[in-house]
Amino acid sequence: MASNTFNNELQNGQARIQLDSPLTMPNATSFLWNSQMVAQINCRGYMTAQFMQPEPAKYSYAPNLEAKTFIQPEQPYYADHPGRFFYIKNEETGELFSAPYEPMRIELDSFSFSAGTSDVKWVIHKWNIEFTITLSLTQDKVVELWSVDIVNNNKQNIHISIYPCFSIGYMSWMNQSATFDPELLGIVATSVTPYQKVEDYFNNQALKDLTYMIADQTPDSWCCNLLTFRGEGGMHNPSMLQQPSLENKTACYETPVGVQQFKKILVPNEKQQLNIIFGPANNLDEIKQVKAELLASKAQFSQKKQEYSAYIHQGKGSISITSPDSDFDQYVNHWLPRQVFYHGDVNRLSTDPQTRNFLQDAMGMIYIAPAVTRERLLLALSQQKFSGAMPDGILLSEDAQLKYINQVPHTDHCVWLSICLQAYLDETNDISILQETIGYSDSAEINTVKTHLDKAMEWLLDATDERGLSYIEQGDWCDPMNMVGYKGKGVSAWLSLASAYAIKCWVYVCETYLSVNEQNECKTQMQEFMAAADLLNLQVNKYCWNGDWFARGITDDGNLFGTKTDNEGRIFLNPQSWAMLSNAATRQQYELINKQIFEQLATPYGVTMLAPSYTQMREDIGRVTQKSAGVSENGSVYNHAAMFYGFALYSKGKNDLAFDVLKRMLPNQKSAKAQGQLPVFVPNYYRGAYYQHPHHAGRSSHLFNTGTVAWYLRSVVEGLCGLKGSGDDLLIQPQLPSHWPSLKVQRQFRGANIELDIIKSDIVKQQVTTMNGFVFKDNKLSNLQAGHNYKVEVLLPTQKLSLPKLTIVMGVSGCGKTAVGERLAKDQNHVFIDADNFHDMDAKQKMASGTPLNDEDRKPWLARIMQFLTMLLDNRQSCVLAYSGLKKQHRQLFTQLGFELTIVHLNVSENTIATRLAQRENHFFDPNLLSSQFDALELPSENEGVISINADKSLEDIVRQINQEISND
Amino acid sequence: MASNTFNNELQNGQARIQLDSPLTMPNATSFLWNSQMVAQINCRGYMTAQFMQPEPAKYSYAPNLEAKTFIQPEQPYYADHPGRFFYIKNEETGELFSAPYEPMRIELDSFSFSAGTSDVKWVIHKWNIEFTITLSLTQDKVVELWSVDIVNNNKQNIHISIYPCFSIGYMSWMNQSATFDPELLGIVATSVTPYQKVEDYFNNQALKDLTYMIADQTPDSWCCNLLTFRGEGGMHNPSMLQQPSLENKTACYETPVGVQQFKKILVPNEKQQLNIIFGPANNLDEIKQVKAELLASKAQFSQKKQEYSAYIHQGKGSISITSPDSDFDQYVNHWLPRQVFYHGDVNRLSTDPQTRNFLQDAMGMIYIAPAVTRERLLLALSQQKFSGAMPDGILLSEDAQLKYINQVPHTDHCVWLSICLQAYLDETNDISILQETIGYSDSAEINTVKTHLDKAMEWLLDATDERGLSYIEQGDWCDPMNMVGYKGKGVSAWLSLASAYAIKCWVYVCETYLSVNEQNECKTQMQEFMAAADLLNLQVNKYCWNGDWFARGITDDGNLFGTKTDNEGRIFLNPQSWAMLSNAATRQQYELINKQIFEQLATPYGVTMLAPSYTQMREDIGRVTQKSAGVSENGSVYNHAAMFYGFALYSKGKNDLAFDVLKRMLPNQKSAKAQGQLPVFVPNYYRGAYYQHPHHAGRSSHLFNTGTVAWYLRSVVEGLCGLKGSGDDLLIQPQLPSHWPSLKVQRQFRGANIELDIIKSDIVKQQVTTMNGFVFKDNKLSNLQAGHNYKVEVLLPTQKLSLPKLTIVMGVSGCGKTAVGERLAKDQNHVFIDADNFHDMDAKQKMASGTPLNDEDRKPWLARIMQFLTMLLDNRQSCVLAYSGLKKQHRQLFTQLGFELTIVHLNVSENTIATRLAQRENHFFDPNLLSSQFDALELPSENEGVISINADKSLEDIVRQINQEISND
Repeated sequence: MASNTFNNELQNGQARIQLDSPLTMPNATSFLWNSQMVAQINCRGYMTAQFMQPEPAKYSYAPNLEAKTFIQPEQPYYADHPGRFFYIKNEETGELFSAPYEPMRIELDSFSFSAGTSDVKWVIHKWNIEFTITLSLTQDKVVELWSVDIVNNNKQNIHISIYPCFSIGYMSWMNQSATFDPELLGIVATSVTPYQKVEDYFNNQALKDLTYMIADQTPDSWCCNLLTFRGEGGMHNPSMLQQPSLENKTACYETPVGVQQFKKILVPNEKQQLNIIFGPANNLDEIKQVKAELLASKAQFSQKKQEYSAYIHQGKGSISITSPDSDFDQYVNHWLPRQVFYHGDVNRLSTDPQTRNFLQDAMGMIYIAPAVTRERLLLALSQQKFSGAMPDGILLSEDAQLKYINQVPHTDHCVWLSICLQAYLDETNDISILQETIGYSDSAEINTVKTHLDKAMEWLLDATDERGLSYIEQGDWCDPMNMVGYKGKGVSAWLSLASAYAIKCWVYVCETYLSVNEQNECKTQMQEFMAAADLLNLQVNKYCWNGDWFARGITDDGNLFGTKTDNEGRIFLNPQSWAMLSNAATRQQYELINKQIFEQLATPYGVTMLAPSYTQMREDIGRVTQKSAGVSENGSVYNHAAMFYGFALYSKGKNDLAFDVLKRMLPNQKSAKAQGQLPVFVPNYYRGAYYQHPHHAGRSSHLFNTGTVAWYLRSVVEGLCGLKGSGDDLLIQPQLPSHWPSLKVQRQFRGANIELDIIKSDIVKQQVTTMNGFVFKDNKLSNLQAGHNYKVEVLLPTQKLSLPKLTIVMGVSGCGKTAVGERLAKDQNHVFIDADNFHDMDAKQKMASGTPLNDEDRKPWLARIMQFLTMLLDNRQSCVLAYSGLKKQHRQLFTQLGFELTIVHLNVSENTIATRLAQRENHFFDPNLLSSQFDALELPSENEGVISINADKSLEDIVRQINQEISND
Repeated sequence: MASNTFNNELQNGQARIQLDSPLTMPNATSFLWNSQMVAQINCRGYMTAQFMQPEPAKYSYAPNLEAKTFIQPEQPYYADHPGRFFYIKNEETGELFSAPYEPMRIELDSFSFSAGTSDVKWVIHKWNIEFTITLSLTQDKVVELWSVDIVNNNKQNIHISIYPCFSIGYMSWMNQSATFDPELLGIVATSVTPYQKVEDYFNNQALKDLTYMIADQTPDSWCCNLLTFRGEGGMHNPSMLQQPSLENKTACYETPVGVQQFKKILVPNEKQQLNIIFGPANNLDEIKQVKAELLASKAQFSQKKQEYSAYIHQGKGSISITSPDSDFDQYVNHWLPRQVFYHGDVNRLSTDPQTRNFLQDAMGMIYIAPAVTRERLLLALSQQKFSGAMPDGILLSEDAQLKYINQVPHTDHCVWLSICLQAYLDETNDISILQETIGYSDSAEINTVKTHLDKAMEWLLDATDERGLSYIEQGDWCDPMNMVGYKGKGVSAWLSLASAYAIKCWVYVCETYLSVNEQNECKTQMQEFMAAADLLNLQVNKYCWNGDWFARGITDDGNLFGTKTDNEGRIFLNPQSWAMLSNAATRQQYELINKQIFEQLATPYGVTMLAPSYTQMREDIGRVTQKSAGVSENGSVYNHAAMFYGFALYSKGKNDLAFDVLKRMLPNQKSAKAQGQLPVFVPNYYRGAYYQHPHHAGRSSHLFNTGTVAWYLRSVVEGLCGLKGSGDDLLIQPQLPSHWPSLKVQRQFRGANIELDIIKSDIVKQQVTTMNGFVFKDNKLSNLQAGHNYKVEVLLPTQKLSLPKLTIVMGVSGCGKTAVGERLAKDQNHVFIDADNFHDMDAKQKMASGTPLNDEDRKPWLARIMQFLTMLLDNRQSCVLAYSGLKKQHRQLFTQLGFELTIVHLNVSENTIATRLAQRENHFFDPNLLSSQFDALELPSENEGVISINADKSLEDIVRQINQEISND
């Protein structure tokens, strides 16, 4: 346990994840929310929070005037963030430290940051005292509930001061002040939100411009002026803490802070508690009310925390699994539904969520509270235009407006309607929704949901060019791909495929959930829809298949992009995934695509969205190419896209690959330091640009808003567990990864409870599903009764899989490793990887400058190759590796990985190579280093089993000889 | 010298101000600018800078995502600001410190921050090494020029590393990275300004999204990643400095910083120099060019600095004085014209300066470069509407737009046209401007400047209500007074007076500068204008005079405000000043007003703009009432308003009072700590709310953008030195303060050079002006010849002034001090002050809680009373002070101040008072404290000369007896 970076725990049936040091993952966070607010809490004590009034607002600011942003990817500015700190002073020695860790960063005797599903907790030991700090929220208020529990484990009395120090920060240039309110017995900071026009004065009346910090006991002293508190000592050693008491002075137009001193004397083993509330308010009366409600007694405070916990656990969802992988279970059973619930519950606390997010978030709610999905679908449709088009955002209140990115025209929103509706109907069989009638945003007409959907699909089909491909305008699902079609001509291969898929979903819905009469009425239309969807697939194949993968689209100027002629953005993941979903890709195409995904997109941290990442602006593609390489949409492991891929893999029965996508999306022990995140949520991305910036690859964005999780949960339920509704039935088609012998699932479905016990067994050749001895021929349960319990057993055949192969082509630089390796890989459709690509920039520069790498330089390089091969092995991918392998020790690294290994040595004379190298261009290897290579070469000894080939001949001959030697073995 | 907080110096004829400690005025700053940029530099190393492209932008950001603001009043967030720091490591001992002081804050052997007019310099001693750090700008580029000069004063070699560490900060969430460019040999940070719409991509093409930091020598190592640089050590002790070298690693989507290591070995007495350039650029080529231009050689670098210095000194202006007050001379001769030049040169680096600022800044330029004034006047008039109305801002480029406050309708802009034009003509006699023809913003018509001005004046007269008072709409000069007239009815007394003044200026211009024919043509109109101006004065008297001062206006709902019935905002300074300028106030009225100004508005830090400051929103006045009390327009010493007052005082011949306004506006030794600012500029405000928040009163805003300085310079030239042009003449009417025996002035005027020698002498009864023995009867020089030199001598009569009187009314609480004192003051029109008003909140609370103040408590209170009395004395104001004076020692404090002192003791029995106090309301004195007062009372002894009155009788009787006793003395 001690070697784990973090630990999964269950306490009273509730999940917690614990981190035992503030140093290993300094940016690790958790988040809490309710319907009014959301907060992200860093393990070291930084915190940022935002509430709705109705637009997002803050009550705890950075110390300088902050831009109106909430959290930014990767939180690059934590040290300058608001925080909730607790300075602790030993009143006998004058010693100080800060809990949980910031801002003093004094070493603690022990530290633990523990993220719970409905709280965040730190347990800290220092001076033989145990400090437990807990943050919770309430169910429906904008207020933080803080507790500090202190236990004196000394044999003597202890005398300490606790100084909670909560950032309030630079509130407003118009007015900011703070003081200790003698009636409330706490600090109240006041500000006026800046404005200039008279009408805004009236608009601002309801704003909560006060921030309060009130304890359940009267402080011994207080300070509310950040600058005098810090003094010359700074936040890491505040001058005012050198005094016996805080200054007790009002801050008048001085940056406010909330600091209070509580002197505590504890006898041995005594336990004391301090409770604090912190939040925004409109006026003093509101604070009085909140205080009365929350701080009346310790019991009441505790009660409110329990209510919050109950609220969060309403979102526990309808599935629970027990697999051989307890970390995975913990995520799926606790953190995943929680994140799905967060999204679907509060729509990311926006007043104008993007339509695609709104619908996908709603889709996730089918497993939490399907009534919410229904309501959201109807709300979205009520804002549809009569043309069938969907707006870029869904307005959640009358005052809401489409803002920022929602003012830019995107063309994919209709796609998500049928996808979300299908998921809803499969889960609920609530066919009544199809006949609900609703209006439009721009017409007085009222139509059924069915008609609304028909219109949406027709809109998708209409928004195509003369080739029949979908226009992209200023973006599809990928917002920042905003210049592919801004002139009105560019098209999206992905959107064409997604439209085909969406239309097929809609046809499936009609065929499955309409009555026979209704079906007859629209039969022709459905046939036309199917034909149109097939045509979309056909046209994408015609215009966008490049022989090995699907391109991403065609620009305004008619250039196919995301294809072989591109040096950057050569391949995009989404068209491949959706070609699988829409059935545009044949099985043969899929095999080719798969090879390309592993050669170009896959990384140990997941599959990137595009590669190579762009490093310069492409004006025919747009904003995505301006983002930093490997960050966000520019080629990160963008989990939303990776999850589409995983979902598609399940749709094709690629159980191992699909599971690997799920698993690799979770922060894990092996990658913890690179990722820097706890598995309490799936972030929107991990950094990509794996070959360009290997040092940064895998780093989490720490952003928990992502469309990923709805699809993750759906993949677990429908794919991994194979428990999908369809019409009156529950299909049972589990797709376990090959290394799992069994899986237990508990599933609520349409009011019934299913207990599924899946076991792999040699005695069956195909899935056998039984209940009380009864065998279901077609692996489906029909007409389940709400309230009933169903114990189902599934036997799956054991898979006998051969080992994946690793062929290493070795030899000195210039011997032809790459050409030979590529050719071998192509012939067998194995993944080709070139060890040279795993060098980082420093090593490349070193070699280019004529200095040979030493063993120390090679360590990270070899580690990356090993890590990559391990990833391939996890995915059971055979591969060919071009690799110098000059030293025996470096060849032996590969023998224990688990592949079926073949090493081929391309033997060639120094002279021949010198001639070749002199002719090469664009290769970073300095020809002068060649002799050092021959010096370094330890020729393989016989017992290494290396196949040695004289490589001083044509590629054809070399390959022929290798194949011959291998088959001889 | 050692006891001075700062020192004024002259080096090579150029002014410098030096601060010898980083601790005494930690927020002290200087500023530098050129036509492209402006920077504010803090004495401890923080710095903020902004450039135009064309809208304001940054290249050095705060570490978190910063709001788009430049500098905020009082710089409350310095510790979180960008900075330019120099870490210095002793390579032998490993010891570190940071220069100039931040962020390590290690004690130095010596420190000096020296603000020059065209550079900023620090000289620091540590380890027997002298470090001189200098910042300069160029004449026309956006780039900082930094030099570090090192002198080894040790007898041994020294081995140090210098690490300049320049903030680059959080540049953009879209893209930010940094690396060491091997060709440029410096750090280049790259970002993409965030945008979402395609059109903005094209708009953003020209933005300077790169920031570079390049030295004139190759660094030994470098780091450009803020977080890895700080590490766990933090900015105050960066972890990376513990290593022998910096990491030499690219930052890829990681907050950039510029840090470079330069190892230096210096033999004894050796001197070395390091030069660095730091700034923004659009692309690498631009940086190459800048580097080639600036860093080609040390000589070239030095040359660029000299050119910048020459550029700044172009603005030295046309007046220079030698007075008995060398600090004042230093400001007037160097810093004042510099600040005027800054304003007029670059219009505060805005693309849409507010019209009133634009015109007043242009007015200041008459003394620097009158051609600029002319051009600005014509530009402003070209944007006038045909109705005569002026827009809220003047657009300086085609792309510029009216933004922020310029979208709110204000009604005063026309006023500044004639004021500015008059000043221009008086200075230049350039009558051609009146016949220049220009167009309008909303009409094809073209008219002469004269017609434009006529229209502006007519617009002012039209924009009045049925009472003839000027509408205020959403603000006049006072922007945030935005709700007085937003319903369309409220009027401004100030604007009515200002209109009267502006019209009179216009009539004066016509009468002085039009030809006789032209005058004849518009004679009737001029008479009408004069009549209208007089009517404005009359109506303000009718509706807004409250018997003692002029109210500020009448709200939409018909409420007079800024008057006796108001508890807050009782009196405003502007209507009083402008009633003097417009001649609305008679001499008697002025005397009454003067008493009120000293009783209500005057503070030791200057005259506040209104009092008492508002502490709660008044919805019929507006935003000004929401600002923090004593801050900005809500009752600070708002220097722009104070300067109007000073100018008005000169217009009324109140030399002493006027000079006191000038003098008190400058940071000075006595108030240095309260103000926290060096006299390198006049800030826009010092905090007011003197009685409400005495602890904060006087604190500088540190903002150097202010309309104050044009008026300040004009007051010095026209008022103090009395050298004002008018028609063909130069009037010579110096207005020296009574304590100055002499003044020498050098003045350029219309190309001529005037040397004026002013001496006070007993031998004259009135001013005698001579040149080469020739006496000018009317004290004016006519028809001066450009290029000629005129030596003029002025004899002024010596003033024999009696001492101002201080009457102290003393006695225990409840004895009637206040009532008696007020009455005495009123009878003699002396200023009344009540010592009780000088208690701070803490003391009031203490007394209210029944605890008597001790001597320690009384110290700051007594100091404030002394400081206030000193201010009155400086202004030669007689006054009556109600003051307990129970102890002899407390009475004796007043004997040496310089007043003619009278102390009156109101003697009354304890019983009588107990009865009285029990009946009082709203007084913070606890009746239980009474007996402690009688205990404390040391009855005045005979030799104290105190007049003792039995106060157990009617007010009338008491006052009569006092007057009798005094006249008996």
